[in-house]
Amino acid sequence: MMRVAIIDLGSNTARLVTLAYEPHQSFHLLDELRQVVRLSEGMQGTNIIQPDAFERGIGALVSFRSYCDAAGITNIQATATSAVRDAVNGDAFLRAARKRARLELRILSGEEEAYYGTLAVANSLPVDDALVLDIGGGSAQLSLMRNREFMRGQSWPLGAVRLTERFLQSDPPKKKEVRALTKHVTQAIGTFETSGRSLPLVGMGGTIRNLADMYHKQQSYPLDLLHGYFLSKAALEATLQDLLGKTLSQRRDIPGLNSDRADIIIAGALVANAFLEHTGAPGILISGQGLREGLFYPYLLPDLQPPLLPDVRAFSVQNLTKRYYDNPAHNEHVRKLALELFDQLTPLHGYGPFERDLLSAASRLHDIGMAINYYDHHKHGFYLAVSETLPGFTHREHIIIALLIRYHRKGKPDTAPLAMLLEPDDHGRVMKLAALVRLAEYLERSKAQLVKGVRCHLSDSLLRIEAIADARTDAHICVEVQETRRRTDLLEQAYGIRVEIATA
Amino acid sequence: MMRVAIIDLGSNTARLVTLAYEPHQSFHLLDELRQVVRLSEGMQGTNIIQPDAFERGIGALVSFRSYCDAAGITNIQATATSAVRDAVNGDAFLRAARKRARLELRILSGEEEAYYGTLAVANSLPVDDALVLDIGGGSAQLSLMRNREFMRGQSWPLGAVRLTERFLQSDPPKKKEVRALTKHVTQAIGTFETSGRSLPLVGMGGTIRNLADMYHKQQSYPLDLLHGYFLSKAALEATLQDLLGKTLSQRRDIPGLNSDRADIIIAGALVANAFLEHTGAPGILISGQGLREGLFYPYLLPDLQPPLLPDVRAFSVQNLTKRYYDNPAHNEHVRKLALELFDQLTPLHGYGPFERDLLSAASRLHDIGMAINYYDHHKHGFYLAVSETLPGFTHREHIIIALLIRYHRKGKPDTAPLAMLLEPDDHGRVMKLAALVRLAEYLERSKAQLVKGVRCHLSDSLLRIEAIADARTDAHICVEVQETRRRTDLLEQAYGIRVEIATA
Repeated sequence: MMRVAIIDLGSNTARLVTLAYEPHQSFHLLDELRQVVRLSEGMQGTNIIQPDAFERGIGALVSFRSYCDAAGITNIQATATSAVRDAVNGDAFLRAARKRARLELRILSGEEEAYYGTLAVANSLPVDDALVLDIGGGSAQLSLMRNREFMRGQSWPLGAVRLTERFLQSDPPKKKEVRALTKHVTQAIGTFETSGRSLPLVGMGGTIRNLADMYHKQQSYPLDLLHGYFLSKAALEATLQDLLGKTLSQRRDIPGLNSDRADIIIAGALVANAFLEHTGAPGILISGQGLREGLFYPYLLPDLQPPLLPDVRAFSVQNLTKRYYDNPAHNEHVRKLALELFDQLTPLHGYGPFERDLLSAASRLHDIGMAINYYDHHKHGFYLAVSETLPGFTHREHIIIALLIRYHRKGKPDTAPLAMLLEPDDHGRVMKLAALVRLAEYLERSKAQLVKGVRCHLSDSLLRIEAIADARTDAHICVEVQETRRRTDLLEQAYGIRVEIATA
Repeated sequence: MMRVAIIDLGSNTARLVTLAYEPHQSFHLLDELRQVVRLSEGMQGTNIIQPDAFERGIGALVSFRSYCDAAGITNIQATATSAVRDAVNGDAFLRAARKRARLELRILSGEEEAYYGTLAVANSLPVDDALVLDIGGGSAQLSLMRNREFMRGQSWPLGAVRLTERFLQSDPPKKKEVRALTKHVTQAIGTFETSGRSLPLVGMGGTIRNLADMYHKQQSYPLDLLHGYFLSKAALEATLQDLLGKTLSQRRDIPGLNSDRADIIIAGALVANAFLEHTGAPGILISGQGLREGLFYPYLLPDLQPPLLPDVRAFSVQNLTKRYYDNPAHNEHVRKLALELFDQLTPLHGYGPFERDLLSAASRLHDIGMAINYYDHHKHGFYLAVSETLPGFTHREHIIIALLIRYHRKGKPDTAPLAMLLEPDDHGRVMKLAALVRLAEYLERSKAQLVKGVRCHLSDSLLRIEAIADARTDAHICVEVQETRRRTDLLEQAYGIRVEIATA
């Protein structure tokens, strides 16, 4: 695995992330350091990075450099955004970074920020066309993505730190202050063309993540992941009202809100709300990935321009199997058998590509829990599957895949605790698909690809499944047939049919 | 990693386990196949393995052989116990196994069964002296272990299948039948010398595990592990009464009881109860390891005779770190710093070797959750820690270690959900020890061993901790000092003292 460090010096927060990756194959986050630097503090009016803020920023860079030196990471990309970009003493800051932290800071333009944010969305969310909103400490960006490509973007000096300083002096803010800020933002956004009112709005950055996290925590949402979470207009409105009624010290105790962001969150929420109004979207689809991940994709996909994953879902699945338990021959064979069963049983289930795709992904992932323990590896697999984002899949799809992993060996699917994320008929869908993964798994019990295929014969109330072994292995599929025969109960229950397992 | 398959053909169940191992270093279970063969069915009176049972037994061996062939495992140890040992047609069975399954069955004597069971206990439970009880389908063994060595053992034809056939015809069994069985067992055990009444009784085998699991599930026991679980005399009695009031078909639905064991569980429970009476122990300490693991230890520890792990706890910890996330330099250094803090703060906490050992183990294990994800790796680490047995530690110790992992980065320890396993003052213990792991972790934030040691200065209400860097690295411990300063809250709370972090 190769390693890279991405440093992102924002107007509110400085972050270092280190990632391990194998180009085009897989990656994962190794570590993250975060420091609240408030680089733009006091810049309002003067456009000068103030001495204290200057020192905090350089201090963060010095410590990040020291971390990289200690960890032996030489591959470093360090970037700065709005505060340094806009400051009249930005050059002095760059020189200090070079001299004291030995870092060459790359200053991103507003459009570059927008571009990299869009790249993160295109590589991790199941949307091809969207408006992408990134609210930072100093600026906010809105971009138009069409067919996963960045079309155009604009940056406004509408960051949460900046607007708090300018508009919100009272604690809690007065109505008058809120109105003035909102008016300012609405006027600034002006006539940015959102290409019709039908595009989903994707949101990223610490402010939006925190807003989503606050509501997410209140809701007992069954998936502890923000990436792919949908924060509705009503939810944002409720969160905003909640915030407006609280003092700073009360806001510091809100679950889901970083206490060091409690002072600037109201300005951020007002900006988010104004963009939501402007675009007419029904809510914000949250992206857990943002600028830093966008800056990383050129490393992961060095030969692609733009660096877009050819198939986000396939990459997601591969990334998980590589991380946990990779027995490609077995996983691929379970997938092959499960899909053969799926295709031959179409008259029974009537499902199409949506279900076939989920079955395919779950078949590849079914054994990831083996990384923890053979015993209960179906339960461990569920835990692992819901502990990770699954870029490219919706939360509903993600949960269905996790449930197929959970029930690939035994047990009767219990979908009730996850109902919030499912459609009414998903229980039957999980029953029917889990039955197929389970059958495929036991038909491949020796993990040696002995059963070459299946032939299903349907008659009245009997489903006869023949396991096909080639001549060489014929004598050896007794484990498969015996074990499969003991696991037909879910199949019988899900499809309401008697099942017989035979050798061809 | 090397691989070995252990086959254990019991009177009730045939099992194949495959294990991956690196001699003296680590091991884990790869797979398990289980078939209920009821080899001793109908042997009562005739001592002949009946034709159907014979075929079931050979069939299981043929499928296990086929599994090994498919998996490419050539290192196989296949053993048989009571049924084959006692049968007049045992030789014919051995020949059939050789011819049809290409397996050389090793017939274990009753004493050998007892020996290997004891070996499993000595290598996995925190007891040096114990009586070890193994109840099988055909026979039951009781052994005396002193100072982790097998002293002597005896085998009786008191297996659960055998006794069910002989005594329990009615459904549910009549009182008369129960009395007759109990009398028979008590007489058979007779005068086996248990060396005083103070030794703990350790129990193993499917029957005892199922009895424990039934009660364990009723209890909402906070740790989902049977190895190391204590089934009290009263709990066994309650379970037995519950079983006696139910018909076979009702017993099939009891959570924790394998449905294919529902017919023989009552006989098994009566045998367990009789041994408990005989030994005078207050209950049964459950061993999740048994004969198969005992047979495996000679592979893991090829140069040791007897194959006893020199330090069970150290091995446990090492086995987990090797499995999940091994950064030995970092883990060892966090351990070193945590123990330095522990030793220098003795006047504040007054703890001794018990706490020092747990702190040491938790320091080595603190990062295992990184195997799942950097984000929330403290939570993932807790999940991993409680998903695995931790041989050599009691459940209380195991939970304390898991809690130290859980709180090594942030959060205030919540021990309430685990109170069933803890002593009243363990909450304070976890607070105080977690504060030390946390401090050590942040003093080693760059994972590069930059802080060489600590010096604690105590005065009135102030604890001043100096981070010592050697001259070469002095300039670089700014990450460590900054990050540690932000994480002193738990330390201050746990010890009721103000904390200052300084460089030496």
